[in-house]
Amino acid sequence: MAKKNNAQFVQEIADINENFPQWYTDVVLKTELVDYGPVKGSMVIRPYGYAIWENIQKELDKRFKETGHKNAYFPMLIPYSFLTREKEHIEGFAPEVALVTHYGEEELPEKLVVRPTSETIICEMYKKWVKSYRDLPVLINQWANVFRCEKTTRPFLRTSEFLWQEGHTLHRTHEEAEEETFKMLNVYAEFMKNVLATPVLTGKKTEKEKFAGANATYGMEAMMLDGKSLQAGTSHDLGCNFAKGFEIKYLDKDGELKFPYQTSWGVSTRLIGALIMAHGDQRGLALPPRVAPIQAIVIPIASHKEGVIEKAEELYKELMSAGIRAEKDFSDNTPGWKFNEWEMKGVPLRIEQGPRDIENGVVQIVRRDTFEKIEVQRDGLAQTVARLLDEVHENMYNKAKAFMDSHIVTCNSLEEMQKALDDKCFVKTMWCGCPECESKIKELYSATARVMPFDQTPVGNKCVCCGKECNEGELKVIYFARAY
Amino acid sequence: MAKKNNAQFVQEIADINENFPQWYTDVVLKTELVDYGPVKGSMVIRPYGYAIWENIQKELDKRFKETGHKNAYFPMLIPYSFLTREKEHIEGFAPEVALVTHYGEEELPEKLVVRPTSETIICEMYKKWVKSYRDLPVLINQWANVFRCEKTTRPFLRTSEFLWQEGHTLHRTHEEAEEETFKMLNVYAEFMKNVLATPVLTGKKTEKEKFAGANATYGMEAMMLDGKSLQAGTSHDLGCNFAKGFEIKYLDKDGELKFPYQTSWGVSTRLIGALIMAHGDQRGLALPPRVAPIQAIVIPIASHKEGVIEKAEELYKELMSAGIRAEKDFSDNTPGWKFNEWEMKGVPLRIEQGPRDIENGVVQIVRRDTFEKIEVQRDGLAQTVARLLDEVHENMYNKAKAFMDSHIVTCNSLEEMQKALDDKCFVKTMWCGCPECESKIKELYSATARVMPFDQTPVGNKCVCCGKECNEGELKVIYFARAY
Repeated sequence: MAKKNNAQFVQEIADINENFPQWYTDVVLKTELVDYGPVKGSMVIRPYGYAIWENIQKELDKRFKETGHKNAYFPMLIPYSFLTREKEHIEGFAPEVALVTHYGEEELPEKLVVRPTSETIICEMYKKWVKSYRDLPVLINQWANVFRCEKTTRPFLRTSEFLWQEGHTLHRTHEEAEEETFKMLNVYAEFMKNVLATPVLTGKKTEKEKFAGANATYGMEAMMLDGKSLQAGTSHDLGCNFAKGFEIKYLDKDGELKFPYQTSWGVSTRLIGALIMAHGDQRGLALPPRVAPIQAIVIPIASHKEGVIEKAEELYKELMSAGIRAEKDFSDNTPGWKFNEWEMKGVPLRIEQGPRDIENGVVQIVRRDTFEKIEVQRDGLAQTVARLLDEVHENMYNKAKAFMDSHIVTCNSLEEMQKALDDKCFVKTMWCGCPECESKIKELYSATARVMPFDQTPVGNKCVCCGKECNEGELKVIYFARAY
Repeated sequence: MAKKNNAQFVQEIADINENFPQWYTDVVLKTELVDYGPVKGSMVIRPYGYAIWENIQKELDKRFKETGHKNAYFPMLIPYSFLTREKEHIEGFAPEVALVTHYGEEELPEKLVVRPTSETIICEMYKKWVKSYRDLPVLINQWANVFRCEKTTRPFLRTSEFLWQEGHTLHRTHEEAEEETFKMLNVYAEFMKNVLATPVLTGKKTEKEKFAGANATYGMEAMMLDGKSLQAGTSHDLGCNFAKGFEIKYLDKDGELKFPYQTSWGVSTRLIGALIMAHGDQRGLALPPRVAPIQAIVIPIASHKEGVIEKAEELYKELMSAGIRAEKDFSDNTPGWKFNEWEMKGVPLRIEQGPRDIENGVVQIVRRDTFEKIEVQRDGLAQTVARLLDEVHENMYNKAKAFMDSHIVTCNSLEEMQKALDDKCFVKTMWCGCPECESKIKELYSATARVMPFDQTPVGNKCVCCGKECNEGELKVIYFARAY
């Protein structure tokens, strides 16, 4: 196999500044995170990519259980008629659903849809299970695959089938449901910060951008390195819309039959796309340590020398038994080749040890986030590595946060807005709340309303688009951005 | 809410000896493991059932990773034409597949099938990934949902959609592939023993019973309490059948292009059905401790007395922090009601503490497997509970093993066979190997060939059905049984 040098490695990846979309595609394919499936719009999540998803699942699942949720599993095939029981829901999803019409040769009496989301089938079951106020709240989550036909697809970011989790809860009061909606949005945002090292903006979605069937959708938006926004997760206040469509009623303490209030919330394999585009660089991936499948790669230097491999093996085993996800590269590639490959694959720490290091009782550690080379004592290596992984995490988060903060521009006119968007920034501005202005901005600049933040301290006194000075409270602080 | 006594609890579950199928249905529904879905043949796995599946997944996934496998995810929708590339495969699965013909209003140029299993789509990807002998072996597993239309369905045992794992591996030589096939069968059998406390018979399947597309299928069979067999998992030696159909070729060391040898192996949510029918009794479920969602239920006695609840809470927290899956029942139901309910739900240990126990520094523990009540010291409770959970596991396994051993009858005639089957036993016998005898036995007694054990020490000298005395090696030791 021909050896490649650094330049060749880099050549194989498109320029991150000049062609970000191609850079993304090159990186996800070359690092073997993902591959295209045979059916248009489908993806195969390869072992290196799936291991990231497993780590995401583990961290999120822990948080869901800590907040009192339990997992369950509902059928993938849903009678078509279920979708029609919530008016906005069917309008939103009808064009995107995959329809099952036959089992083998036999035509089905009613066509079925592959779930695009599971509100409807879950409501059908909740109707059976919920009879009394004693049965509330219902706090259930599902890990599942869903399908929504997409015309323009990109691995992880938008594919017809994707993996996700969907929480579905029922509550006695609207206050309680709203509290749940915010609680889970906060769980997501905390996870983004502490696990994916990625800051997010949270807030309410506009009517146009909300979930088909919700009273209100809250979302979190992450800024990618090209200045575009990625919706990383949503949490919906569904009111009683589905409960009414499915006739879920419970007997309340006062002896009356009432509709419960409902929420749903979800994140998906899209998060993998988010972390790639929030942290990568020209050399490839840079994975946040807490989800990196390999946190530290051990590379022996001058491995033909006596004892070098053995010592590297010892290192590796010590790290593994300390609970660090370590890997070793004892292949016959050159060290330079290995350095480039594992950098491209985004491994947070590289651990090198050659004969002189062994003599001196030290190892060399190179950080993926800063490329800094640090000589550390061999003794206590596992603790040092654990500490460094935390430092890498902090630094990655701080860097992403600084990037985001420096790429949000407050605008008070369409001219300012256009300039900010062309400078690859998010726009923070005031909006009158009318869908016409929202549409006009989309038409003019291909930018969409992302979220209205919870902190509504005004940044101007008129709508950035129509210039209307509204009554107090009508004018909204809002972020616009080009988005994935 | 009306309180129920023991008799009422028991009345609600059909007699396990008189109507085993109804007993099973009553138990899985009343303990809220599962519910029927709205589409015929579908099931909803409720939180208590899904928690068992999560524990099964955790234990199996650990074993798969320890044996060098990595997880990945392949698309759920497969082009119909893929299925036709392996002749037996399409014949086996064509009548059972769900067909997707439209996305929304738009008819698809080629119909897609919801995966009934993933050999074909995985081979399509392996063709892209495997070029050289250096790329072998490929050791990949997938956790996924699959769909096979079934006419007669029962929760967990046979449903159209079910959850499973499917391992798919490629190897250079047939020896290596065969070794993998046996290795994973052994992983399964070890898991059955050490996690589900359930003994199995392993061996080779007959041609009739093998997987559609395999050269050979090896399986494990578990004996249910009604003397019927349940196929609990299979491991297939696929030869080069799919590799040829999908033109997977690799350049070997000798410079020649060759087909790799392939295996696949899987277990499913069926295992939940297996453990219920291997261990349950008239009072309901009896869950093996290592998969029980709740391993110990803490019930305060005379909880209106001062300090009783607080002490129970302390107990509960201590168990939880020792890594025991504990739960507490502080509801206002009577202790008797609670005892019955948690017995029905199969919790391995019940931990009671009343005012006198508190005074004496003891707690009362009742085992679900023996109903034995044991007084133990309050000090060191977590260790005692951990030890008792192991003892419950051992006892459950030994009991199931003794039951199985005493329900296998060696037969040398059809008369003996009929009697054994009617006595709810497995039949161990000799078979000439011809499909006609196999079919005749099925027709006569509704019993099917389960496995030909690896230990082929003869138990007779002629075929139990046709009476032929075959040449050495042709006559097979085989198990027949009625089966799920």
